Amino acid sequence: MPREITAYSNPLIKRVRLLREKRHRREEGLFLAEGLRILTEAREAGRIPQYLFFARDSAAHPLVQALVADVEAAGGEAIETVPDILSKLSGKDNPQAVVGVFPEFTRDLASLDRSSAAIWLVAERLRDPGNLGTILRTGDAVGAGGLILIGECVDPFSVEAVRASMGALFTVPVVQCEWAEFTQWLRSGPGQLVGLSLDTDSDYRAASYTAPTFLLTGNEAQGMPDAYAAQCDLLVKIPMLGKADSLNAAVATAVMAYEVLAQSRGT
Amino acid sequence: MPREITAYSNPLIKRVRLLREKRHRREEGLFLAEGLRILTEAREAGRIPQYLFFARDSAAHPLVQALVADVEAAGGEAIETVPDILSKLSGKDNPQAVVGVFPEFTRDLASLDRSSAAIWLVAERLRDPGNLGTILRTGDAVGAGGLILIGECVDPFSVEAVRASMGALFTVPVVQCEWAEFTQWLRSGPGQLVGLSLDTDSDYRAASYTAPTFLLTGNEAQGMPDAYAAQCDLLVKIPMLGKADSLNAAVATAVMAYEVLAQSRGT
Repeated sequence: MPREITAYSNPLIKRVRLLREKRHRREEGLFLAEGLRILTEAREAGRIPQYLFFARDSAAHPLVQALVADVEAAGGEAIETVPDILSKLSGKDNPQAVVGVFPEFTRDLASLDRSSAAIWLVAERLRDPGNLGTILRTGDAVGAGGLILIGECVDPFSVEAVRASMGALFTVPVVQCEWAEFTQWLRSGPGQLVGLSLDTDSDYRAASYTAPTFLLTGNEAQGMPDAYAAQCDLLVKIPMLGKADSLNAAVATAVMAYEVLAQSRGT
Repeated sequence: MPREITAYSNPLIKRVRLLREKRHRREEGLFLAEGLRILTEAREAGRIPQYLFFARDSAAHPLVQALVADVEAAGGEAIETVPDILSKLSGKDNPQAVVGVFPEFTRDLASLDRSSAAIWLVAERLRDPGNLGTILRTGDAVGAGGLILIGECVDPFSVEAVRASMGALFTVPVVQCEWAEFTQWLRSGPGQLVGLSLDTDSDYRAASYTAPTFLLTGNEAQGMPDAYAAQCDLLVKIPMLGKADSLNAAVATAVMAYEVLAQSRGT
């Protein structure tokens, strides 16, 4: 039976609210995800929240009932609460019907099977959580094997990244590592490292990609360091016909990833 | 000579801060843009702020000096201020060196020359300012003739949209209108209306686009209404290989726009 919490002062509510901050996520090893669509995606991927908060109004919704049943079966706790508290937890004025608290999950490079996918996404020093989440969402769509985050990237478990991923955080493996570790692992097997660059004449549509292709996207403001570009097997550019010299990082990644996908499918 | 403002209580500071709200933007016919990169982009496009706020530290920067000179020559006002006030104006902890207040500019359909570009972007009921700005940025990159916003879209002059556009708001014409006006204008001349849809078997890479192509992107959560889809000359889908059934709206628009661009350039 779900218990009910209606007071802000409840210690669990206070604790869960703090998970909006990275420091507390790291201390607790827990993160927040919100919304029926994302939590259902998580459930289908076998990720069950440790705590599930749901609004009384949505208690009868079959997807909420399925979530509650799974949480309780897995030894977690389902908690009925009020919209105001859901707002506080999610930091949004129009709260979602459900908020889940999940254990963080980490993967390492050694656990990846590079032959399992034609496309892998690699991002270095990505700063915007919306970009990170959007890249994960695109990764899911193109069947990417995973997203490898290099160096000081924004936290993939931040509320904004989870939200922008629309559930892809639960379906696309994420690894965080340093450049040296990544290149050592990459060069221990087959793999074409393709970097997006302004300093090349190779149009991304004219280049040939060979699976598994690792698509490297650099920092939003600075692009990738020259030393990283030098280690790429191929540098390509996306045509820029206007005044600006770059695309949004998530957009550039998607345009590249769909070209690699099209080539791998022969379309 | 720039005057100096260092007090939050200054009436102009109060007035400018209110431009973060849509209601005040409409009342004043003014909006905010921040950062040297975006303001320089605006300047190159011939858009000069009515008020320019800059930090004392950056007064010696040649781009700031060029902006100050242009603002004063155009009868606007350049104001030296302190980082704390720039933070207040931009709503960010790390303020940009410059914040500009610009008159809003509007375009109507009749002012667009459809033969001037191969690609035009059309978005209906777009809700996220980051998506709107990112679509403008992509529009600049693919040489789009403009962005046509249909129905209740987020305000293109919101701080977040301007920021995400990275200056493209100043270089890509934006028109706001209703669906009926748009279709009446569209059908008064040549133009292929292409809609992104889940309910079609036509892969976006297999379709043929004929200039001028109008790419229609629907609302983030709901896609486009059936009645709009029925009026498209062509419906296409982007392959989705994962668990999710849609891409981010700005990503989908970019993947489509770059395919149309590639076809129009024969690559």
